Amino acid sequence: MYQLGIVKRNINRADPAAVEALSGFGVATVHEAMGRVGLMQPTMRPIYGGAHLCGTAVTVLLHPGDNWMMHVAAEQIRPGDVVVAAVTAECTDGFFGDLLATSFRARGAKGLVIDAGVRDVKDLTTMQFPVWSKAISAKGTIKATLGSVNVPVVCAGALVNPGDVVLADDDGVVVVPAAMAAQAAEAAARREANEAEKREKLASGVLGLDMYAMRPALEKAGLKYVD
Amino acid sequence: MYQLGIVKRNINRADPAAVEALSGFGVATVHEAMGRVGLMQPTMRPIYGGAHLCGTAVTVLLHPGDNWMMHVAAEQIRPGDVVVAAVTAECTDGFFGDLLATSFRARGAKGLVIDAGVRDVKDLTTMQFPVWSKAISAKGTIKATLGSVNVPVVCAGALVNPGDVVLADDDGVVVVPAAMAAQAAEAAARREANEAEKREKLASGVLGLDMYAMRPALEKAGLKYVD
Amino acid sequence: MYQLGIVKRNINRADPAAVEALSGFGVATVHEAMGRVGLMQPTMRPIYGGAHLCGTAVTVLLHPGDNWMMHVAAEQIRPGDVVVAAVTAECTDGFFGDLLATSFRARGAKGLVIDAGVRDVKDLTTMQFPVWSKAISAKGTIKATLGSVNVPVVCAGALVNPGDVVLADDDGVVVVPAAMAAQAAEAAARREANEAEKREKLASGVLGLDMYAMRPALEKAGLKYVD
Amino acid sequence: MYQLGIVKRNINRADPAAVEALSGFGVATVHEAMGRVGLMQPTMRPIYGGAHLCGTAVTVLLHPGDNWMMHVAAEQIRPGDVVVAAVTAECTDGFFGDLLATSFRARGAKGLVIDAGVRDVKDLTTMQFPVWSKAISAKGTIKATLGSVNVPVVCAGALVNPGDVVLADDDGVVVVPAAMAAQAAEAAARREANEAEKREKLASGVLGLDMYAMRPALEKAGLKYVD
Amino acid sequence: MYQLGIVKRNINRADPAAVEALSGFGVATVHEAMGRVGLMQPTMRPIYGGAHLCGTAVTVLLHPGDNWMMHVAAEQIRPGDVVVAAVTAECTDGFFGDLLATSFRARGAKGLVIDAGVRDVKDLTTMQFPVWSKAISAKGTIKATLGSVNVPVVCAGALVNPGDVVLADDDGVVVVPAAMAAQAAEAAARREANEAEKREKLASGVLGLDMYAMRPALEKAGLKYVD
Amino acid sequence: MYQLGIVKRNINRADPAAVEALSGFGVATVHEAMGRVGLMQPTMRPIYGGAHLCGTAVTVLLHPGDNWMMHVAAEQIRPGDVVVAAVTAECTDGFFGDLLATSFRARGAKGLVIDAGVRDVKDLTTMQFPVWSKAISAKGTIKATLGSVNVPVVCAGALVNPGDVVLADDDGVVVVPAAMAAQAAEAAARREANEAEKREKLASGVLGLDMYAMRPALEKAGLKYVD
Repeated sequence: MYQLGIVKRNINRADPAAVEALSGFGVATVHEAMGRVGLMQPTMRPIYGGAHLCGTAVTVLLHPGDNWMMHVAAEQIRPGDVVVAAVTAECTDGFFGDLLATSFRARGAKGLVIDAGVRDVKDLTTMQFPVWSKAISAKGTIKATLGSVNVPVVCAGALVNPGDVVLADDDGVVVVPAAMAAQAAEAAARREANEAEKREKLASGVLGLDMYAMRPALEKAGLKYVD
Repeated sequence: MYQLGIVKRNINRADPAAVEALSGFGVATVHEAMGRVGLMQPTMRPIYGGAHLCGTAVTVLLHPGDNWMMHVAAEQIRPGDVVVAAVTAECTDGFFGDLLATSFRARGAKGLVIDAGVRDVKDLTTMQFPVWSKAISAKGTIKATLGSVNVPVVCAGALVNPGDVVLADDDGVVVVPAAMAAQAAEAAARREANEAEKREKLASGVLGLDMYAMRPALEKAGLKYVD
Repeated sequence: MYQLGIVKRNINRADPAAVEALSGFGVATVHEAMGRVGLMQPTMRPIYGGAHLCGTAVTVLLHPGDNWMMHVAAEQIRPGDVVVAAVTAECTDGFFGDLLATSFRARGAKGLVIDAGVRDVKDLTTMQFPVWSKAISAKGTIKATLGSVNVPVVCAGALVNPGDVVLADDDGVVVVPAAMAAQAAEAAARREANEAEKREKLASGVLGLDMYAMRPALEKAGLKYVD
Repeated sequence: MYQLGIVKRNINRADPAAVEALSGFGVATVHEAMGRVGLMQPTMRPIYGGAHLCGTAVTVLLHPGDNWMMHVAAEQIRPGDVVVAAVTAECTDGFFGDLLATSFRARGAKGLVIDAGVRDVKDLTTMQFPVWSKAISAKGTIKATLGSVNVPVVCAGALVNPGDVVLADDDGVVVVPAAMAAQAAEAAARREANEAEKREKLASGVLGLDMYAMRPALEKAGLKYVD
Repeated sequence: MYQLGIVKRNINRADPAAVEALSGFGVATVHEAMGRVGLMQPTMRPIYGGAHLCGTAVTVLLHPGDNWMMHVAAEQIRPGDVVVAAVTAECTDGFFGDLLATSFRARGAKGLVIDAGVRDVKDLTTMQFPVWSKAISAKGTIKATLGSVNVPVVCAGALVNPGDVVLADDDGVVVVPAAMAAQAAEAAARREANEAEKREKLASGVLGLDMYAMRPALEKAGLKYVD
Repeated sequence: MYQLGIVKRNINRADPAAVEALSGFGVATVHEAMGRVGLMQPTMRPIYGGAHLCGTAVTVLLHPGDNWMMHVAAEQIRPGDVVVAAVTAECTDGFFGDLLATSFRARGAKGLVIDAGVRDVKDLTTMQFPVWSKAISAKGTIKATLGSVNVPVVCAGALVNPGDVVLADDDGVVVVPAAMAAQAAEAAARREANEAEKREKLASGVLGLDMYAMRPALEKAGLKYVD
């Protein structure tokens, strides 16, 4: 942590098969499968509805109002990567727009997750370049100060190491450490396996109270029914 | 108020005819008809555009991070009800997703209003199960602590008694006490009656200044026109 | 500044040709062209996606919870104007709805920018009457206190003089002083002129690092590449 | 609820002995004694450190930017009362200052709890007139619209009925329904009874793990110690 | 407005006698005397209690995370000035600390008002150098981008022209245009003249209802007293 | 990261001499010395003025509304430690009060940093037990769910590893990785060494423009002085 002015070229990306497996699940499912950790804050929202993203993190540490490192990051992108951008202090400026998106896509990036603002959202939507951000702002940035690329960063409350899997959908963004990717995918699969059956039961009118056998515990806790 | 560990089974739902009548009006109109009271805070937003909801409240009091009572509430839902969920302290966790929505719908619920977060919003949108919430979050919750069902709750700044009418649209959420439902519907109807005529006049270029005869009051208040 | 109870009838609207020229650019481009100033805060969002607005400002200064002056403003609107409404203190109430929109449109207004709340957003969307606001709220307002029309106002952090050009799109709202409109349009045109070429290069895989010749400055600043 | 333009003169104030008993406890203790309910939101802060308040509620329902009803409320104050002011929509204006404080004190009020702003805080501090508010603002208000006095109100997320006990200290504000006051005081006393003993044990180095016998439950839940 | 890279050396400072006169009043009084305008947002708070400030504005326009212009501003300070710092976008970084305070004081500055963060608040408190800010943050800033000095700025929602009077106390910050300073001081004096008498009456138990003769208007508005 | 239900007993605490050295500096100085990184968000404020804290981190990962792990953490505290508590989702509940403070102090803890709420602040102030938190709230918590102790946590936007140095004062909280502690202390010492001289110069009226030789760079950047 805390390495400024550093670009790490070789990072350990999560196993492609595990990334592929994780891409089939929703954020809520994977977050549950990991034990309810790894979520970014709900301030992170997609710039258009229905966006979906799953890839390996190339991380960027930026300073407020300065997007210089985004250009440095572009060179480190490999096909299947997701750029994850953190800022050293709260900032809503528009660090990213359609030109950078064009460059990132040309390098193979699947999308961007940034704990700040973005702009050109109409163009980004037309391009279907998915972005999760905490703000939309036309405010431009400068290119004056060194940050880092591919160091561990804290983005919207979540630690992201380069190479980690980043999964995002309409429910938010979850980070899966590279070493846990396969295991998380398996746990997610187990979790989803019996959801169809549960959904069918609930749809037929069976109550969760009965399906999950909650009544004894509720009674023990003292729940009282009155008229 | 302040009854914990209680489930009230028999509640006085607003008169169905009044609920039906209210369902034809917008939130702004009903809020005005009641004298500009009963609104929830504007932090409450629909999870998809164009959502509309009108029904009688089944209330739930939850603790932060714990959605156990949502399952208890499901059993109390009757066709035409809206679940209104309050939390004893600020919380954005995802208390509700597609499985609970399936269960609520099977019981006849028309939708959910919750002063917290929800998840699986893509599925909820596909199901067209309308939800108004203050956050979207994949964060899961536990099932450990008793709250209550069908007690008076404060949801997003509004008092909701079980059986009250809850009306929600793109403008927000308004609560009509069960005993006032018929009266509110009539007042709303009166209010709307002459809106068409007003709209036509304004569309033709008549000014509100003249249509509402505001000029004398403005002059008396001291308004000055300068060049 | 600080004139209350005043309506200025004659204002210096920006040159129509300059307004027309500016209307062809995005907010981010014009904001950059002016030297990264003139933006309203990113709390200002359009009530529907894809909205676009460019016109000359008729300004309104309101008090919290009181929309009386909106009716006074209606009379001052000329075709091509945009109403810009500021409030003397933080307020999210719904100062504007479909009736006022009908009236404003009849007078020739292109849209509304308001540092407060609006309502009837479904109707406004159907009408395609574009509004940028910081809140959506059904809360009604009264008509009791004098503000002013066509005085300088501070709206969402930006100074707006009557007659200034107001440009708004999915990225936010930017204000161009009337006297700078032509100059800003030219600067915006220059800025956009070479964007197509840049986009093409970036799309072909050329890096911003090379296209903008950033490598020497980064090296001089001490950037280190590690493996 | 929702009675506008009403002043209720006779209210059922909580039993003075119970109020007196409750005044000896802290907010956290009473909140726990009631089962962790009844708290206002933590946005409510005292205007000076060390402030303490316990009395019976005279409630006021205000509109944004309008403090007319505060004067109406003054007449309803009896010695030992606390004025609790709610607003029909979010507002930070300064509804209250040293003149109203002088009047309220002359009528016997012990303090004010207001879900909005106050001003003259230097004078209020000199007077040692305790106020809990969510903002400090010099913004003045008008006197144009009817609200109500001594109707149930929602203040900072808590329901307050006239006559309820309101207890406030550096930790926040808690509301005890009048009918529960004696019972809450007793529960608070029981809760505090063994705190001294606990504090002594903890101070001597005994761990909560042992004092509360938590180890078996932690082990059962699966807690693992690693080196 | 919108002049970047400009330092204006000669500004029209408000008349010293008017500044002196205004310094004797509180922020709330002056704000009322001007017709309830000119206040900064209540997010602006003093870094220590009891701080008071009255002087003529030297304005600074900063970019997020960049305090270069603060040093440029220092040279423009004359005895009796107050530095008013605005930022082109939301930022909470610490733009100001004890070294700059030492420099500003040496130039005769009375204090600082900044719509961003400051640091070294313990030292600033020891120095009794009064600052109103929206944040306290140790986050350092760079010196890379030109802003301006002594151009009109929008600070915390208020327009400030160089030379305007800035008055700040525990209630917040108010701006008085230089040309209105004498007039505002007189209006403030008139307002305060009869406050002592009012305070005495209210202290003796006279109600505002009677002192301000509000009862007829309340009755006319329809206020109802019930038992 | 992301280990739940784990308590790590042996952690690598920063070198005591480095901790001692760092304790003599302010947060702003150390943050600058590390290259402007490592700060927690400015939402973290001390519960009383003048508080100061420097020690080695024992970390705790909590779930919203559940403080069970605080008791588990108590056992892991050694003299000189600071407890750093993170929550898996946004929560302002009062996880900590005077009993836990008594226990923590008995174990040798110097203070607490928590990205949530605390209560009993009057008692904590009397005890002079320093706490930095983002909220003060009387809301009680439960003991039902496992988190972890001495795993890496993200607290208020900063990564904290067990054993890291945590330094806090009126300006906020900064985290120094254990391995960098000595180096950071030296850099801080170098930074402070010439501050006294600078302060003296500035106090004598020398401008930063001259002391830092900024004029050429400003001129080169295009700064213009006008009259």
